[in-house]
Amino acid sequence: MDDSVKHACGLFGVYGHRDAARLTYLGLYSLQHRGEEAAGIVTFDGKTMHTHKGMGLVSEVFNESTLRGLPGRMALGHTRYSTTGSSTLKNSQPLVVTCAKGPLAVAHNGNLVNAFTLRQQLEAAGSIFQTTVDSEIILHLLARATNAQFDQDLAECLQLLKGAFTLLFLTERGLIGCRDPNGFRPLCIGRLNRAYVLASETCALDIIGAKLVREVEPGEVVFIGADGLRSLHPVRDSSPRLSQCLFEHVYFARPDSQIFGESVQAVRTRLGRQLAREYPVEADLVMPIPDSGNFAALGYSLESQIPFVMGMIRNHYVGRTFIQPAQEIRDLKVRVKFNPIKEIIEGKRLVIVDDSIVRGTTTKARVKSLRESGARAIHLRVSCPPTKFSCFYGIDFPTRKELIANTRSLEDIRQFLGVESLGYLSLEGLLKAVGKPATYCTACWSGTYPVPFGEEGDKYALEKHSGQGKC
Amino acid sequence: MDDSVKHACGLFGVYGHRDAARLTYLGLYSLQHRGEEAAGIVTFDGKTMHTHKGMGLVSEVFNESTLRGLPGRMALGHTRYSTTGSSTLKNSQPLVVTCAKGPLAVAHNGNLVNAFTLRQQLEAAGSIFQTTVDSEIILHLLARATNAQFDQDLAECLQLLKGAFTLLFLTERGLIGCRDPNGFRPLCIGRLNRAYVLASETCALDIIGAKLVREVEPGEVVFIGADGLRSLHPVRDSSPRLSQCLFEHVYFARPDSQIFGESVQAVRTRLGRQLAREYPVEADLVMPIPDSGNFAALGYSLESQIPFVMGMIRNHYVGRTFIQPAQEIRDLKVRVKFNPIKEIIEGKRLVIVDDSIVRGTTTKARVKSLRESGARAIHLRVSCPPTKFSCFYGIDFPTRKELIANTRSLEDIRQFLGVESLGYLSLEGLLKAVGKPATYCTACWSGTYPVPFGEEGDKYALEKHSGQGKC
Amino acid sequence: MDDSVKHACGLFGVYGHRDAARLTYLGLYSLQHRGEEAAGIVTFDGKTMHTHKGMGLVSEVFNESTLRGLPGRMALGHTRYSTTGSSTLKNSQPLVVTCAKGPLAVAHNGNLVNAFTLRQQLEAAGSIFQTTVDSEIILHLLARATNAQFDQDLAECLQLLKGAFTLLFLTERGLIGCRDPNGFRPLCIGRLNRAYVLASETCALDIIGAKLVREVEPGEVVFIGADGLRSLHPVRDSSPRLSQCLFEHVYFARPDSQIFGESVQAVRTRLGRQLAREYPVEADLVMPIPDSGNFAALGYSLESQIPFVMGMIRNHYVGRTFIQPAQEIRDLKVRVKFNPIKEIIEGKRLVIVDDSIVRGTTTKARVKSLRESGARAIHLRVSCPPTKFSCFYGIDFPTRKELIANTRSLEDIRQFLGVESLGYLSLEGLLKAVGKPATYCTACWSGTYPVPFGEEGDKYALEKHSGQGKC
Amino acid sequence: MDDSVKHACGLFGVYGHRDAARLTYLGLYSLQHRGEEAAGIVTFDGKTMHTHKGMGLVSEVFNESTLRGLPGRMALGHTRYSTTGSSTLKNSQPLVVTCAKGPLAVAHNGNLVNAFTLRQQLEAAGSIFQTTVDSEIILHLLARATNAQFDQDLAECLQLLKGAFTLLFLTERGLIGCRDPNGFRPLCIGRLNRAYVLASETCALDIIGAKLVREVEPGEVVFIGADGLRSLHPVRDSSPRLSQCLFEHVYFARPDSQIFGESVQAVRTRLGRQLAREYPVEADLVMPIPDSGNFAALGYSLESQIPFVMGMIRNHYVGRTFIQPAQEIRDLKVRVKFNPIKEIIEGKRLVIVDDSIVRGTTTKARVKSLRESGARAIHLRVSCPPTKFSCFYGIDFPTRKELIANTRSLEDIRQFLGVESLGYLSLEGLLKAVGKPATYCTACWSGTYPVPFGEEGDKYALEKHSGQGKC
Repeated sequence: MDDSVKHACGLFGVYGHRDAARLTYLGLYSLQHRGEEAAGIVTFDGKTMHTHKGMGLVSEVFNESTLRGLPGRMALGHTRYSTTGSSTLKNSQPLVVTCAKGPLAVAHNGNLVNAFTLRQQLEAAGSIFQTTVDSEIILHLLARATNAQFDQDLAECLQLLKGAFTLLFLTERGLIGCRDPNGFRPLCIGRLNRAYVLASETCALDIIGAKLVREVEPGEVVFIGADGLRSLHPVRDSSPRLSQCLFEHVYFARPDSQIFGESVQAVRTRLGRQLAREYPVEADLVMPIPDSGNFAALGYSLESQIPFVMGMIRNHYVGRTFIQPAQEIRDLKVRVKFNPIKEIIEGKRLVIVDDSIVRGTTTKARVKSLRESGARAIHLRVSCPPTKFSCFYGIDFPTRKELIANTRSLEDIRQFLGVESLGYLSLEGLLKAVGKPATYCTACWSGTYPVPFGEEGDKYALEKHSGQGKC
Repeated sequence: MDDSVKHACGLFGVYGHRDAARLTYLGLYSLQHRGEEAAGIVTFDGKTMHTHKGMGLVSEVFNESTLRGLPGRMALGHTRYSTTGSSTLKNSQPLVVTCAKGPLAVAHNGNLVNAFTLRQQLEAAGSIFQTTVDSEIILHLLARATNAQFDQDLAECLQLLKGAFTLLFLTERGLIGCRDPNGFRPLCIGRLNRAYVLASETCALDIIGAKLVREVEPGEVVFIGADGLRSLHPVRDSSPRLSQCLFEHVYFARPDSQIFGESVQAVRTRLGRQLAREYPVEADLVMPIPDSGNFAALGYSLESQIPFVMGMIRNHYVGRTFIQPAQEIRDLKVRVKFNPIKEIIEGKRLVIVDDSIVRGTTTKARVKSLRESGARAIHLRVSCPPTKFSCFYGIDFPTRKELIANTRSLEDIRQFLGVESLGYLSLEGLLKAVGKPATYCTACWSGTYPVPFGEEGDKYALEKHSGQGKC
Repeated sequence: MDDSVKHACGLFGVYGHRDAARLTYLGLYSLQHRGEEAAGIVTFDGKTMHTHKGMGLVSEVFNESTLRGLPGRMALGHTRYSTTGSSTLKNSQPLVVTCAKGPLAVAHNGNLVNAFTLRQQLEAAGSIFQTTVDSEIILHLLARATNAQFDQDLAECLQLLKGAFTLLFLTERGLIGCRDPNGFRPLCIGRLNRAYVLASETCALDIIGAKLVREVEPGEVVFIGADGLRSLHPVRDSSPRLSQCLFEHVYFARPDSQIFGESVQAVRTRLGRQLAREYPVEADLVMPIPDSGNFAALGYSLESQIPFVMGMIRNHYVGRTFIQPAQEIRDLKVRVKFNPIKEIIEGKRLVIVDDSIVRGTTTKARVKSLRESGARAIHLRVSCPPTKFSCFYGIDFPTRKELIANTRSLEDIRQFLGVESLGYLSLEGLLKAVGKPATYCTACWSGTYPVPFGEEGDKYALEKHSGQGKC
Repeated sequence: MDDSVKHACGLFGVYGHRDAARLTYLGLYSLQHRGEEAAGIVTFDGKTMHTHKGMGLVSEVFNESTLRGLPGRMALGHTRYSTTGSSTLKNSQPLVVTCAKGPLAVAHNGNLVNAFTLRQQLEAAGSIFQTTVDSEIILHLLARATNAQFDQDLAECLQLLKGAFTLLFLTERGLIGCRDPNGFRPLCIGRLNRAYVLASETCALDIIGAKLVREVEPGEVVFIGADGLRSLHPVRDSSPRLSQCLFEHVYFARPDSQIFGESVQAVRTRLGRQLAREYPVEADLVMPIPDSGNFAALGYSLESQIPFVMGMIRNHYVGRTFIQPAQEIRDLKVRVKFNPIKEIIEGKRLVIVDDSIVRGTTTKARVKSLRESGARAIHLRVSCPPTKFSCFYGIDFPTRKELIANTRSLEDIRQFLGVESLGYLSLEGLLKAVGKPATYCTACWSGTYPVPFGEEGDKYALEKHSGQGKC
């Protein structure tokens, strides 16, 4: 896909390990793809919360010295995307506050659809806001709850939230993880000897050698403390339909992760096989847009028996600080990141497999670049249906009018991209690739939104209010 | 004095000037002596608050680019001391929040004696705290006030505060300045053509060419907005005894400032004259500890007719990042900052004038250094009484047990310092040097605290709570 | 391969383009794999040489502002590996000096085997050295040459050099490129409209849309100036046997480049095919060590008809600043970079294809990691022969005693790595994969060194002299 | 004076102390006034030269970590002024090279009048230049000398130099200091227990507690090594007239230093006294332009019996990074640095004492600022004669046409500055203030240049050649 989809977050927490900060650092490293623009770790050493946050990659934000400044046997980490600029450091997570319940840290992945309403209610009740992230709303709600038990406070707070929220909390007592009842975003539980780990994806368990125990269930809250792991389902009775994000399998999650009970690479390979069944074509080579199309392309190749090649080289050094070339060489931008290999492509009929198309402009440029390298025919295959609807649950697609599939017919898109044929995987085909199709959200393709929200503007209300993004 | 006293803050605000941020930058430059460890500016451009804060000197925190990012015709700036370390950036001011009253920024100079109580009450009512500065408490109180008018909200908030608070607020409507009813810390009003300026000291008016209008009165609130300046005295009825900080005249304020209705250099010169009357001595030369003792030394010289010399050179390049020499040359630390001129000192009987003595260790080292340069006799004169009591109103003296005058007799101190004679200005003499002696606080010398506070711990409660300083 | 081989350099030059610095920046971007630790660009604007160099990646060293500070229509750029630490900035290239011939800049890829001798001769003649790079020796020789023509000076200088030297010079007159008579390191000529480009690899032409004209021939000097391109063969008569670096094809060069007249990916695919012929095995899957083993693995798969999979995910965010985990989790280092996908690997018999093995320790750790993921059998295939000999021509292998193939038998290595079978491509097989086998250097495998050098110490003499690396 | 004179350097060297780098760091701290834009230290640990240099103040360039990286018992340090911009880091000193004589470091204070000629000769002989500092020329000459002994090489080299050169060398054998036969720039010898110290001024001995042994004599070379201190006078026979820089006493040197056998503050006080004799006036107060006019003002006050005041406060926080205020407030620049105290000045007849006047524009602005503060009359007294001639021996005055005294009559200057009266000290008066008037250079006032130089351009030839300054 192109670079338009920028919104996700990675969560990682540890309880009960003397190297808690370092494990969290490693965990965030492997979750870097879920958020490249800010990172933060909070630890609790029995007396004090220690925090280090910064803009940039995990490897840029932390070093030996900052990790040494994060003592304690429990830790919480977060990676995020956000608008560029140092001024947004204040919006980076985890967010740490002190309240009557003691020190509290929280990290959030997802998007509340009632954030604006909740914030207005809180402001009306005298709350002040120093950031524009949903996490601050959640902390206010938690701090204002006045039940006998913290469990009840948390339950009360979670019942007020609508939308997508996978949350990690760090308190004086331990680490808490929860997923909204719909289960939009993933969260898994791991063990490393006697320590517990919570992570957005299993690849973060692998990096530290932790074993996967299970996923946190939708609607579940797990408390991890001195007494081990305790589970609650405070919002179970609302029993909503499960709606896990299928786009995580299509694009977001790392292929070596397991999420929602399935291996991401296996799902992607099946998507490619199904795509080959739905859109077969006579061609010489199957090649992916690297790296997001890799497994679907392999699947297409396996099913179609058309040989798989790696006909484009991706330059992994291209970072966030890329400098624009001068006007005259502006259209070479695509080549900076992907270089087609002429010797492979020339004279060949290609099946190009991409995970999705958002705006279409980047895809068009890549097609042009392949054409210039001598491709005889280009058959584009996309491993999900046309992306026509915005996401209100944590994925930051462009606005609807920027989504090419929302404004153009398939034939229009084919012509715009300049390909011989174009095949988007059908929704039915997509759902065949996963084990329990009924448990997924397909809103960005189907327009069927599992959690209702107010007017369209609701989603951007908070950002507009202050010109900041959320996660 | 030595370097033990590190606590003060500088405030500067502008309303109605297209160069608001730049003027504030210049103003903070001239208030740098009130806080060297962090600086911040907030502007409002009619729609959005823009903030830039950082650790370090004003010249390090701001540059052309950051100033360009601060548009608007109203601005608020703050310089502060704080514990070192980037982690305390979050405690830097101005503090900016959004609440039901819209965006609000505040900067504070002083110390609330009921901060801990207020914060506990707020936490009990569900407030969350992201910093440990008094400013956050004030913003919570303001946001929770529910009167018909903002004026009343502010009045209600100010009436809850006890202790020293000179405050600047920036709202969507304009700039607000207030001083506590005791008037502990200074604040003056200036005009630059049609713009209004508020500043801790008049030297900040001079730098931008603004004219002094008057000081903000103790207990007064000035609202500066589209309709000009409007004054309220919301807490006038409590009519406390005025208790302006006399230590500002003795040490803190810049000599070229006017504060509390008097020229600082003139007061200091009178302190020196009075010191000469109280402690005359036969000597060859009068010399100051530069630069804080300069004017008192000139006064002593004028009164005693003993010639004034500058017998020590101060190295102004010595910054905050000074590297400790190895053990062997450790006691040379004093020489890095002050170098006595042997040719002047050798064989001479000296009167050394310093503004105050806190711990005494630095003074002792300086005396040693003068002795090694050949001084025949050293008569130390201090332009205030023995500093025996902690300050709870915004000056961060060491703890009482570290104050040499609290634990030793004058003769003990003289012997400890190694001087032929030691003369501290009397409290009566000190009060003679100012026009309205009854309007000053003398607590650090007399122990008479004008605003009561709870147990001793009250002052440090908040800091202990979180290991952070305040201003 | 593992990370032991760190020595290479990337060269890029432009003549006759108003965006010379920007093109060079882009070119260096695509040559980043040839040197990640320092980068530099020099431009000449008709009057002055402008230089910007720094430690770090190209994207870190340059930004809009530094590029704007590099005006001119001719430019020279360099990326390099070097010892870490800012102190080695002085050793970064291009090196720029002024001499009787005017300002001169030079960038070098390769290694002189007579550097120490030349430097001793120059020092004896009164030369002073400010760096330890070969480039400085070359500039001294050039400056001391006293022929009637610059061409002759350059010829005289080049005839004194022994070993591997691909050089780019920038003078007031234009850009000069040369390759040593053996042709150890690659250099190609491209055109972008009317501008000329010289680059280490063709991928750097692709990124700016330049067309490949041809390669600079071994022993050739090309002068590019106002009169176009002029070619000389000043050292042709020495007519040495060609000895282009075959390791460039095996590992160094980017797969999308053409060097030494061949497509790198095509060579690598053929290496994989040949490997399958030499070391067939019954297995379920073929997978590469990503990314260096990708094309050889594809070739092996094509030849053996065993399905190709991507069973390890490489984390591309792992940068140079990776922080070591604590002792307890030290052996997880390998997982930080490569994560095996259990779902793919479990229960399978794998053919793992890597480009080469140097020390063997990293390979051993990867094998262990695959075994822990449940691999039933691991058959390691290496797409070059055992690396037994040091390189004296610009590739910085570890010392001979660190090369595992130099100290252990194949069976020993197999046991050490813990694999079921181990197959190194034969030298004959390797040479079959390239079009003109006689034109390549195979010294690191065969021990047959095409350019003689003195004692073993010769290579490291200069570095030992000063503890610095060269390129 | 105003800020136009920016050219000087500070030298410091240590032999035989285990804290050599740290002592050098402290020494450079106290020589910071001789060069604020770059600093560097080189140490030798018996095997290797270790160097750390950077742009900025000594406190910015060095920290604990960089000092730890400078082991060894001998060290050489340098502070310099230079054109701003990181690109000039390469011109910072000490310069370190390797040559047939081993590793050599050199630091230079002064200006060679035959630098351009020497460099042309060296280039013609095949030398290459990487910087534009005189030091590199000196190292080339030294490296090319081929006598039996290093002493002879050094003597040969020094005999070729014309102009001002105080040099420190660090070799494998020890520390070497030399002054040109005219003795333009100062250099003194100190001892700290068994270690030797060489420093530009005695204030650098004071800071580390070293004792002054004596000054290095004009034309003398001192070798400090394992055998102690050895002295040579290799260029004695040329026996030039001594011409020590009198401007060091007037402005450059620190008042607490002794140079050329005299106490700087004592000389300055005598200058003030003499000024009072030459230009008496009826006035109320004498005040200096702080801090450079302090001692002359005290002298004027003592002689005239007009009371001394400090009527301007200098803001020492004003660093090199000062941001220009917007156009409207541009003329406030002077106030940022100096704030006149209205309460002191208003209605008074002032004698203002400054050390010198160069361009006159800054002085004019200060006079205006004093006038706005209510001064009734301003009598300007300058403690040296009119500065009419450029310096070719190391002080970087503006060009002759920018020197106000060169282009205007005294009455013109008085009117330009806007003062009631103007008195420049006479040359005779100036010379009376020093013990041995015949040993001084007075070229900048008299135009009598003790060392001849070619055309005017000679001085700037090297800089023009490359756009760089020297020291």
